[in-house]
Amino acid sequence: MIRENVHRPMTTTDPIHRNPHLPFGDQQTSPFYGNDILTVNQFSRDDLVYTFGVAHEMREMVTRVGTFDLLKGKILGNLFYEVSTRTATSFATAIQRLGGSVIQINEVKYSSVAKGESLPDTIRTMEAYCDVIALRHPEVGSAALAARYASKPVINAGDGVGEHPTQALLDLFTIVEEQGHVDGLTITLLGDLRYGRTVHSLARLLSKFDVKVHLVSPPSLRMPANVMAEVLESGLSPTEHDTLNGVLPKTDVLYVTRVQKERFANPADYESVKSSYVVDEETMAMAKESMTLMHPFPRVNEIAMEVDADPRAAYFRQMGYGMYVRMALLAMVLGKA
Amino acid sequence: MIRENVHRPMTTTDPIHRNPHLPFGDQQTSPFYGNDILTVNQFSRDDLVYTFGVAHEMREMVTRVGTFDLLKGKILGNLFYEVSTRTATSFATAIQRLGGSVIQINEVKYSSVAKGESLPDTIRTMEAYCDVIALRHPEVGSAALAARYASKPVINAGDGVGEHPTQALLDLFTIVEEQGHVDGLTITLLGDLRYGRTVHSLARLLSKFDVKVHLVSPPSLRMPANVMAEVLESGLSPTEHDTLNGVLPKTDVLYVTRVQKERFANPADYESVKSSYVVDEETMAMAKESMTLMHPFPRVNEIAMEVDADPRAAYFRQMGYGMYVRMALLAMVLGKA
Amino acid sequence: MIRENVHRPMTTTDPIHRNPHLPFGDQQTSPFYGNDILTVNQFSRDDLVYTFGVAHEMREMVTRVGTFDLLKGKILGNLFYEVSTRTATSFATAIQRLGGSVIQINEVKYSSVAKGESLPDTIRTMEAYCDVIALRHPEVGSAALAARYASKPVINAGDGVGEHPTQALLDLFTIVEEQGHVDGLTITLLGDLRYGRTVHSLARLLSKFDVKVHLVSPPSLRMPANVMAEVLESGLSPTEHDTLNGVLPKTDVLYVTRVQKERFANPADYESVKSSYVVDEETMAMAKESMTLMHPFPRVNEIAMEVDADPRAAYFRQMGYGMYVRMALLAMVLGKA
Repeated sequence: MIRENVHRPMTTTDPIHRNPHLPFGDQQTSPFYGNDILTVNQFSRDDLVYTFGVAHEMREMVTRVGTFDLLKGKILGNLFYEVSTRTATSFATAIQRLGGSVIQINEVKYSSVAKGESLPDTIRTMEAYCDVIALRHPEVGSAALAARYASKPVINAGDGVGEHPTQALLDLFTIVEEQGHVDGLTITLLGDLRYGRTVHSLARLLSKFDVKVHLVSPPSLRMPANVMAEVLESGLSPTEHDTLNGVLPKTDVLYVTRVQKERFANPADYESVKSSYVVDEETMAMAKESMTLMHPFPRVNEIAMEVDADPRAAYFRQMGYGMYVRMALLAMVLGKA
Repeated sequence: MIRENVHRPMTTTDPIHRNPHLPFGDQQTSPFYGNDILTVNQFSRDDLVYTFGVAHEMREMVTRVGTFDLLKGKILGNLFYEVSTRTATSFATAIQRLGGSVIQINEVKYSSVAKGESLPDTIRTMEAYCDVIALRHPEVGSAALAARYASKPVINAGDGVGEHPTQALLDLFTIVEEQGHVDGLTITLLGDLRYGRTVHSLARLLSKFDVKVHLVSPPSLRMPANVMAEVLESGLSPTEHDTLNGVLPKTDVLYVTRVQKERFANPADYESVKSSYVVDEETMAMAKESMTLMHPFPRVNEIAMEVDADPRAAYFRQMGYGMYVRMALLAMVLGKA
Repeated sequence: MIRENVHRPMTTTDPIHRNPHLPFGDQQTSPFYGNDILTVNQFSRDDLVYTFGVAHEMREMVTRVGTFDLLKGKILGNLFYEVSTRTATSFATAIQRLGGSVIQINEVKYSSVAKGESLPDTIRTMEAYCDVIALRHPEVGSAALAARYASKPVINAGDGVGEHPTQALLDLFTIVEEQGHVDGLTITLLGDLRYGRTVHSLARLLSKFDVKVHLVSPPSLRMPANVMAEVLESGLSPTEHDTLNGVLPKTDVLYVTRVQKERFANPADYESVKSSYVVDEETMAMAKESMTLMHPFPRVNEIAMEVDADPRAAYFRQMGYGMYVRMALLAMVLGKA
């Protein structure tokens, strides 16, 4: 995907996004300058194109040069109310690769109404030190609450069963980088589509593109009705399947999630389906030569290690794409891209 | 307060301050070069003026530029034997905003005489890696002990019920920056004046200036006799009050601390006084237009959230002032200011 | 030791060392470029000379300048499956003093076969973010396993009772820097020679030089037979002793380790020998003026604090040498030295 020169503001009407609020003399004309990143829904198709254009430039820069000082002197506050080493590390290296630095606050004691410090107070304390805040919090809506009080940009790094927009963006960016485009692709989501937050967000993002989506899961782990309704309204018409067999040969992107035994009331039901949701060399033999195999990680055994050496296995490269996307978002909200 | 060009050594006679002991080719003529920062008592009035002059420059630099490489390559060892996220973060961002970096050592296992490593050994190990050490330790006197063994500067980041000099300095610096001066002000300390370490240190610092001080607390939580004696000897004559009403209209700076229920033997006593020690919109309506409202944070409910939007509420800006003061101290002991 | 211009590849034939695998445009002709550092056995005498030459340059640079940007933009992943504050701090400051930065991952939840993420997956995730990985892990062989899967250099920071090569290298580098050379020295290892991993590795390294080695320990804590066999095969002929008295006057380097009470089946045995393994002023009075006194630290009481001020006490300087050695190794595997 070639980067299009779309310099336009975010398409949201949420008042918290209207006023850029960065402290220093940065380019106030950058389209994302001072914005919070709270949900995938705030990204129009043009916003996605713009973001992935910047992320692609970040990828090329890291590959060729390793680092440059675009965000020199900027400090990221990595405020994690629950542990997520992978996400925290990705954000931390993203700012460091751009010459900035990070303050990691781990496992903040959870604040109730009765005791300790409220999230608004913690946020307003942190922003005295930082230029941008990445917030991980177990409660839905906490990122939006933080953004309402913060005068510095807040990036949602996962708020409970709510949103985890940078994960969804990196998933889509992986498709863009591996396949070269999104429109026209056949994308198959496999496994637990009921509880997996990542596939819900990815489906929402995909609905902005002209793609064919197959949903393969046990009947009890189908995509939830509300997500399906949203996606259908956007013009996507996903088809639902019990097994991969029928759709695999035409699939351009296979996105695997884990089917957990604990999700089944009857253990026998799990045993009868589990092998259908494991990707191994045999599976890959039936897949397209150009297919991209993805997984949000960590995996247990839903993708066999024998597949790791297959060039179509993109799940380790996916981590790198995540760093590039976060580099892009940090540069964008800080008025540097 | 305009920065005065006072380039003079610390006024202490403590032998540990006499010999600067920095390793590299820094300006050995800087007045604080190689000094430890252990107690507010080591600061003369001139030292305070000098320190706040540097801190004010740091504030302007951060506001205009964000960062500069005054301490590039310098490493701060943030050695915290007990958790204090706020203080640790403030020190960490202070060195990073000056181009240096930080090593955070959290919750060091407590060393007894019988087991594990002694503080002198840990300090002499740390200083092999770092250029300056910020030490937080639960035992009174530990910072002085560390400084005795260290060849690099040690900054006391709180030693038990002992000193926390950078907190006291940031409180006074907040007054300087918000009011423009200290002499001539009427300053009211409200709440628990018996157990609050911060108000004791602030009172000591204020006694070096020509100010009027009101102490408002429940009778059982009055300022301790030893602190009062020290302060009186310095020429300050604080007046004691049970309620804020009489002194509020003339107050230039209102410093609020929390009155904790647990401090009262009789719960009924707490219930009868607690509303007198809560600052809300009604309180602010009776206060001067130019008043500065401060709090060491975290707060629970002794300042109502409705007050946060009042321009006189300085408690979030206070965090920033803390970072500027710590930037100044780091630059000073490392021979750069 | 003057740095010799030996630009030659590592002498190992292990296939994992053959192919440098660094991502960016670094000097691919550097002899250690892209190598893993897994064991002291991979270092030939020439490799040691080369490494210590670079480490000596690092020492001079830090002493004179403090820092320089040789590894600017490089990120070290400090992946510690068990806590080792000293080693983690040494690696972290090593990369920072060269202008790079660090991602610290502490106390990773231990992954079994049945649950959680495997070491190969974690390593391949980490390397998406980092340029080099320092791995501390409780299981023997884990560093080699990690290196097999990683495409970025892996440095073993201790794998259980296995290897801890950077510790052994810093011990030998301390001797080089304090004595000026290794050949011709009389080196005495004192204390628990049975369980102490550091003395085993040091003995292996010393066997590449022309030195006289004395082993002083209680009979029950002698050097293990397999280490003795290895060392004898290399041409070293250590002599074993029960007490220090006879060998102390001729000793150039005295390396002390702790004799732990728990190692003795019979407490009376411990009481009868313990004083023979404590170094105090009396011991130092009988030692050479030029002797170097070392200890891997932390110490409990096997070296009296009264000895700390003796210029022969090198154990605090030893920490600094560790940082210089790690700076050298990082620069070498990243193709910068």
